[in-house]
Amino acid sequence: MIFRTDLAKEAREIDENIKGVTGKDFTFEGVSGTEIVISDSVAAEKLGKKKGRYVSFETEAVLNRNVEEYLSVSKAIGQEIKKMLSDIPKNKTVLVVGLGNEKMTADSIGPKTVKGVFVTRHIFEFLPREADERMKNVSAISPGVLGVTGLESADIVSGICKNADIGAIIVVDALAARRSERMFSTFQLTDTGIEPGAGVGNKRKGINKETLGIPVLAIGVPTVVYASSLIYDAAVEILSLATGKDERLVENAAKKIATKEDMVVTPKEIDVTVSDSAKIISDGINLALHQLSLDEISAYMF
Amino acid sequence: MIFRTDLAKEAREIDENIKGVTGKDFTFEGVSGTEIVISDSVAAEKLGKKKGRYVSFETEAVLNRNVEEYLSVSKAIGQEIKKMLSDIPKNKTVLVVGLGNEKMTADSIGPKTVKGVFVTRHIFEFLPREADERMKNVSAISPGVLGVTGLESADIVSGICKNADIGAIIVVDALAARRSERMFSTFQLTDTGIEPGAGVGNKRKGINKETLGIPVLAIGVPTVVYASSLIYDAAVEILSLATGKDERLVENAAKKIATKEDMVVTPKEIDVTVSDSAKIISDGINLALHQLSLDEISAYMF
Amino acid sequence: MIFRTDLAKEAREIDENIKGVTGKDFTFEGVSGTEIVISDSVAAEKLGKKKGRYVSFETEAVLNRNVEEYLSVSKAIGQEIKKMLSDIPKNKTVLVVGLGNEKMTADSIGPKTVKGVFVTRHIFEFLPREADERMKNVSAISPGVLGVTGLESADIVSGICKNADIGAIIVVDALAARRSERMFSTFQLTDTGIEPGAGVGNKRKGINKETLGIPVLAIGVPTVVYASSLIYDAAVEILSLATGKDERLVENAAKKIATKEDMVVTPKEIDVTVSDSAKIISDGINLALHQLSLDEISAYMF
Amino acid sequence: MIFRTDLAKEAREIDENIKGVTGKDFTFEGVSGTEIVISDSVAAEKLGKKKGRYVSFETEAVLNRNVEEYLSVSKAIGQEIKKMLSDIPKNKTVLVVGLGNEKMTADSIGPKTVKGVFVTRHIFEFLPREADERMKNVSAISPGVLGVTGLESADIVSGICKNADIGAIIVVDALAARRSERMFSTFQLTDTGIEPGAGVGNKRKGINKETLGIPVLAIGVPTVVYASSLIYDAAVEILSLATGKDERLVENAAKKIATKEDMVVTPKEIDVTVSDSAKIISDGINLALHQLSLDEISAYMF
Repeated sequence: MIFRTDLAKEAREIDENIKGVTGKDFTFEGVSGTEIVISDSVAAEKLGKKKGRYVSFETEAVLNRNVEEYLSVSKAIGQEIKKMLSDIPKNKTVLVVGLGNEKMTADSIGPKTVKGVFVTRHIFEFLPREADERMKNVSAISPGVLGVTGLESADIVSGICKNADIGAIIVVDALAARRSERMFSTFQLTDTGIEPGAGVGNKRKGINKETLGIPVLAIGVPTVVYASSLIYDAAVEILSLATGKDERLVENAAKKIATKEDMVVTPKEIDVTVSDSAKIISDGINLALHQLSLDEISAYMF
Repeated sequence: MIFRTDLAKEAREIDENIKGVTGKDFTFEGVSGTEIVISDSVAAEKLGKKKGRYVSFETEAVLNRNVEEYLSVSKAIGQEIKKMLSDIPKNKTVLVVGLGNEKMTADSIGPKTVKGVFVTRHIFEFLPREADERMKNVSAISPGVLGVTGLESADIVSGICKNADIGAIIVVDALAARRSERMFSTFQLTDTGIEPGAGVGNKRKGINKETLGIPVLAIGVPTVVYASSLIYDAAVEILSLATGKDERLVENAAKKIATKEDMVVTPKEIDVTVSDSAKIISDGINLALHQLSLDEISAYMF
Repeated sequence: MIFRTDLAKEAREIDENIKGVTGKDFTFEGVSGTEIVISDSVAAEKLGKKKGRYVSFETEAVLNRNVEEYLSVSKAIGQEIKKMLSDIPKNKTVLVVGLGNEKMTADSIGPKTVKGVFVTRHIFEFLPREADERMKNVSAISPGVLGVTGLESADIVSGICKNADIGAIIVVDALAARRSERMFSTFQLTDTGIEPGAGVGNKRKGINKETLGIPVLAIGVPTVVYASSLIYDAAVEILSLATGKDERLVENAAKKIATKEDMVVTPKEIDVTVSDSAKIISDGINLALHQLSLDEISAYMF
Repeated sequence: MIFRTDLAKEAREIDENIKGVTGKDFTFEGVSGTEIVISDSVAAEKLGKKKGRYVSFETEAVLNRNVEEYLSVSKAIGQEIKKMLSDIPKNKTVLVVGLGNEKMTADSIGPKTVKGVFVTRHIFEFLPREADERMKNVSAISPGVLGVTGLESADIVSGICKNADIGAIIVVDALAARRSERMFSTFQLTDTGIEPGAGVGNKRKGINKETLGIPVLAIGVPTVVYASSLIYDAAVEILSLATGKDERLVENAAKKIATKEDMVVTPKEIDVTVSDSAKIISDGINLALHQLSLDEISAYMF
């Protein structure tokens, strides 16, 4: 758990000069972004991340509750979704999938995001006259968790794809970061979808282009850091101040605290930071998919 | 809406002597039951019910909160489930589907029942050593409602059937009754599954053997009566006391109040009666599927 | 239960010419209003309402979900609150009390309203530099229900008044109407506070100026009609069409259905109508107490 | 925050030989307990704890979900409540107060406990014939949090005491521990009540015998450890392995990470551990106050 991270940006920090990986910083309307492209299989394995494109946006807004900055982050996310889903056929449905357990705060960002997504598929299907041409055909589901349904989220999603003419999937999930500074401050988008074992809960099957045959865009934000990561970093910092700097000590210390693997570090107000992050992501999705303002969407969804 | 009912028992009361329909009263451990079998297509159309077997149990327990009688009702329901699902292959999974909208009390009995079902499929799949041979392979899902997901429950369920080796389905839904005496006092089971347009919400596609190719057992209890039904019955009663008894008056009166079609009659404490009924049904399902006592199941689920 | 109503307007309809009662219709920015003043004790007893002023606003907006009309209703309510609380000393706190049971939909309008009220007392007390001079000193509480706390709401509220320098109380409660047309369409405000036994739940002690020594403004909207009222009205209508018109028949019929006293009539989508009505009332309270726009308040409360 | 703890047991570990403090280990039906008595004012100030009696029970049951051990812990807690409240007059009401914010998982143990308490005051008051002589007169309230109500919990509670003939208070609150091993594994009871600034949220006024004039028993369990405490302990451990052991390094390290003060360490499954702990405490309270079995209470509360 010590080095556990779902962020490509953090995975890359282990070795910044690895071959077959490119990184680029940029800014979108004042929001700092990083694009990492992993194009080499060996590099992918080293980093423990699939080959593909990873874009992340950095913001202190959620932790500091700077509500007036949320819209910029949503717009940056929306812009990136538009790019990644640019070639989806017009008449196909985009399915938004909220992974995770609604009842466990740190794992609930997926289901909470789904509640904010403006769903329209039933309008196109059953009330076509009420459909606005600026609406995209969108459906959304929170498939629950294995321990509650007995079913893999991947199996539920793949079943829907077979029955509902889905052209692309956006899957939202809570992530784990290695560094506490990243919690609720790095929004990651990737065209690699969801890997088995990723996220805060336990996903056993992947949800991605290989398994489903259609583009899968994954969006997430770290909601926890494993306590062991935090302690490990503290140990390194302390020892770098001390003269000895014996690396074995660090390892020993890290091993000792390996029993704290079920403990996580979170912001004290995690219930609020999860809700706010979910709102930022669902607004980003709504802005990307529909050609409507957030006010118009809000009026439709009230 | 005046004659709207999801109960075969009530549908039959319109014409008790209709050909191709048999009815039989019985008692299971003190609980009164009725079995109606519709074997004729003409009769089926007249009654607005599919051909098949309908069993209902009558109880005042929920409305009077006679908690100590709940177990008998669960056992009666369980016994009937066992009969209807007797020839499901041992290794196949039973999928429990909770239809309806968790956020609308009168429509929430399906999702609430699902929460009480002891789900085991993931144990068999991923922790086979923890599986008890008295457990049946069970999974469960609440697919949500069309207006929230943009997806038909039927499409979600059929997708799962394709991916998860499902042998039979038990689908739980809130029903509408015609007579207020039936609310929360008639538990109906039927092997005909769910018809399009049935239940309290709007289902547009059926969930039954014809659409899915496997046995579908539907369980429900009326949670509402349409206000127009109530008034109609009052009108008939009043006029039967009056001398005139002019049937046209009844019709006129009924038509006049047709504008109240969006109003429903419910017990004042509907939140409690829904929870209790969901518990009775989920206990019945647990008793039928697993060879475990409710105490054992309770310990597993705590 | 047949004639049970919490609305002065309905109580008055029984005898429009009663002495000591004045009624006046008016319009506030497009919203129809009625003001009833009961100034005579005999009249008060006849109507089963306390002496005082009752203002009600009529709107179809909630039942038809005309969201764009909600603001007008909030403004009308806000305007009336301002009038009724015009002479509260500036530095005193206004306490908003949400009566009823959050877990029972039809009785939850009070607690739901409280959640939308912009509370500021702690800002004035502990973060005075963050207080905006346009804010009024406001606190809010949902005291729960007798069956859950074992405590009378009146006792909890009166205790707070003793300890927290409260200058006036606004108490919000779900009401019962006699006619189904009034459900969710009549917002009533009165300076008479809450009577024992009023509302949807069971209040045993009053919350009013007599018991607390400070002005108590009660706001409510009918969420239910007793099924017996509905049937009674249907009976009268039918019999007025029939020739006989025997009044005893009506009485007999009404008596017969008296057993349905625990049944209520509600809109099918009561969960939505309750939430919307609570929003209309809390917006009205916020507009009346603070000199801030709803957008400004929304930013503070996010 | 580094040395922040609400547990007397941990406060004492800083200096085990301090004068005016006695400690004693014991076992109650298999559950390990510790009793600490602080009898000296100087010692009290040093430990940052009020003079009084602190009893804590240690158990791994919650973290390991050994559900079958929960009852023993409840019984141990119940036994201790009985002792501390032994001289409350028979006819007086015991008020159970759940402090904290129901919406913030780590702070919700108080409100969750209150939901499990068997409340009877309204039965004695309004339905005396249904009262069982084995029932104690009990009421319960969750006063909410300052940021939501604008009111101090202490002011709400003191108001109730004035109006409802309360003989003693049991106040339940989430605590902060210094060591992660204590989270959800140390249940503390104390006759000193609640201090200002204690617990996970921000209480500004105390709730104790001095402020209310009646016995106040506080029960709590640590739900969080501040991340800074965890890091500090890790630093000490690492440095004790290294040769230098320069205490200043530790201090420096600790100061450096002081910015993480808004971060907390929790078990990954905190939603479950909070619910289970609340159940243990409410069962303990029910066993102590009423002369009824948990099954009997459960039947009353269903």
